[in-house]
Amino acid sequence: MQALRFHEFGKPLEVLRLEELELPSLDDGEVRLKMLAAPVNPADLNLIEGTYGVKPPLPAVPGIEGCGEVVESRSPDFVAGDRAIILRRAGSWASHVQISAEHLFKLPAGMDVQQAAMLKVNPATAWRLLTGFERPAAGSWIVQNAANSAVGRCVIAVAKSLGIRTMNLVRREELRDELLALGADEVLLDDDAAVESAKQREIRPVLGFNCVGGESALRVMNLLAPGATHVTYGAMARRPLTVPNGLLIFKDLKFRGLWITKWIEGAPKEEVREVYGELAKMIVRGELTMPVDRIFPLAEFAGAIEALAAPERNGKVLLAP
Amino acid sequence: MQALRFHEFGKPLEVLRLEELELPSLDDGEVRLKMLAAPVNPADLNLIEGTYGVKPPLPAVPGIEGCGEVVESRSPDFVAGDRAIILRRAGSWASHVQISAEHLFKLPAGMDVQQAAMLKVNPATAWRLLTGFERPAAGSWIVQNAANSAVGRCVIAVAKSLGIRTMNLVRREELRDELLALGADEVLLDDDAAVESAKQREIRPVLGFNCVGGESALRVMNLLAPGATHVTYGAMARRPLTVPNGLLIFKDLKFRGLWITKWIEGAPKEEVREVYGELAKMIVRGELTMPVDRIFPLAEFAGAIEALAAPERNGKVLLAP
Repeated sequence: MQALRFHEFGKPLEVLRLEELELPSLDDGEVRLKMLAAPVNPADLNLIEGTYGVKPPLPAVPGIEGCGEVVESRSPDFVAGDRAIILRRAGSWASHVQISAEHLFKLPAGMDVQQAAMLKVNPATAWRLLTGFERPAAGSWIVQNAANSAVGRCVIAVAKSLGIRTMNLVRREELRDELLALGADEVLLDDDAAVESAKQREIRPVLGFNCVGGESALRVMNLLAPGATHVTYGAMARRPLTVPNGLLIFKDLKFRGLWITKWIEGAPKEEVREVYGELAKMIVRGELTMPVDRIFPLAEFAGAIEALAAPERNGKVLLAP
Repeated sequence: MQALRFHEFGKPLEVLRLEELELPSLDDGEVRLKMLAAPVNPADLNLIEGTYGVKPPLPAVPGIEGCGEVVESRSPDFVAGDRAIILRRAGSWASHVQISAEHLFKLPAGMDVQQAAMLKVNPATAWRLLTGFERPAAGSWIVQNAANSAVGRCVIAVAKSLGIRTMNLVRREELRDELLALGADEVLLDDDAAVESAKQREIRPVLGFNCVGGESALRVMNLLAPGATHVTYGAMARRPLTVPNGLLIFKDLKFRGLWITKWIEGAPKEEVREVYGELAKMIVRGELTMPVDRIFPLAEFAGAIEALAAPERNGKVLLAP
């Protein structure tokens, strides 16, 4: 088998190598997958840099999610030919992964392989953002920044299915029509003037999602209704949250964070399967689609990592072994 | 009657005047109090400056709390000679206050007038900090900064009565023995070295209280257990909270604020009376005492305001009309 591995934490392009590894033998209850597609997520790069929430033992294979086809099974729940996604951080940037069957989610028939490869992280993040804190009543509003990100687009789709309205902050005017077509209720430029105009229209979201930080996170706070909850799930701007005291004391905003891995690994297994079942159905019905920018073979990982940082990127970057 | 009033928002020493006012007539259900003592709280100065959570109509009499004796009553619940504290912001910096009886809390016999005058804000803040968010189990820890403040001392006393242990950050080493004598379990200097030593001893508080902001608020965050709640109730350093993204996403800290006025005015009346009843009993039993620095007559309000800012102050500053 082939896998991308790193033997020390550091810049991905400097520490990552494509290596030939022995296929390990299969234990009882385990399944061997031939990987079909695995995304390059910002969290993967953080993992390689050593700045993620956990540090894996070294050497390590990155890849926090991916979709594969069963080629050998020692579990009664899977037969060769089944397709599944991996619900643990099991090193999906490889030609093969072997893992206990309990950490797999079997895909429904007819599911697109690329969309499936992206199911674990972004759609589940959107689901938990919308349902895991204060669950907004149908017809009420949420606000989010980086609304054009993969999670942002999932939030728009999942909110629509739950009857929740979305106010979406974006950095480029030309994204407006695209997001409105996806089902966004409002699309605003992420600047102070747009925020002022939104406040005058008296839309008061009860929940706000932030994956940027800094000024943009503050704009989300200022748009929220008193008593609302502000959830941080990413830090694209790599700057901390700055929270004016009055927003805590007088406006009674609540600040939370979301790390989807913790939910996947800690929530009751039945609940996790139910949520992925719902999200997979939305994808099969075409209600939830994540755009793909480019696909690279494992050997061209350097191109994939560069593509992730490219300003003109329009969708997710995948590795397809 | 006499009252301190301001006709425009601004610096207290510039806009506040002692004025002679007509005693208004008493409506049905109302009570007239002769004021006995009223503290000068930082929130009073914010109110005068126009930076408080609400702006009163002008001209206004400051004074968010105080203790008085009934001199005339048109309520069946009070007779002349009863003593009470005022649970609304009714302008306590005056010789007299008249107010609907439902906004008064009648004091138990034998209660010290000065301690009673300070009952509304600081002890109730401590109570809500300890019971209004995640209520810590007996034996578990909280951490607070500015532990020598009036609220900080109340937190130590109330926590002790609830069996909760307190880690206390202070700015001066010489406060250690004083706070230990009050019942504090740990007293640490509010600097990075002290915080490191506390972390090594593996005390992990489940609740943190911040009334400073800036670096001190961050030290409280770093001392907390994963999943803990960080509550801001003041902003002595006049600097916003800076929250590293990892503390939200990976450590799952929750950030809240407390404005005690909102609880007093919004919570069920029975609950509010019950809490003040408990706190008053603690004061009568000598379990809860707030030190008093100096007492000034209304005419010497300038001295009182200066005393509040004095670095050598050791306790609350009161006005006694």
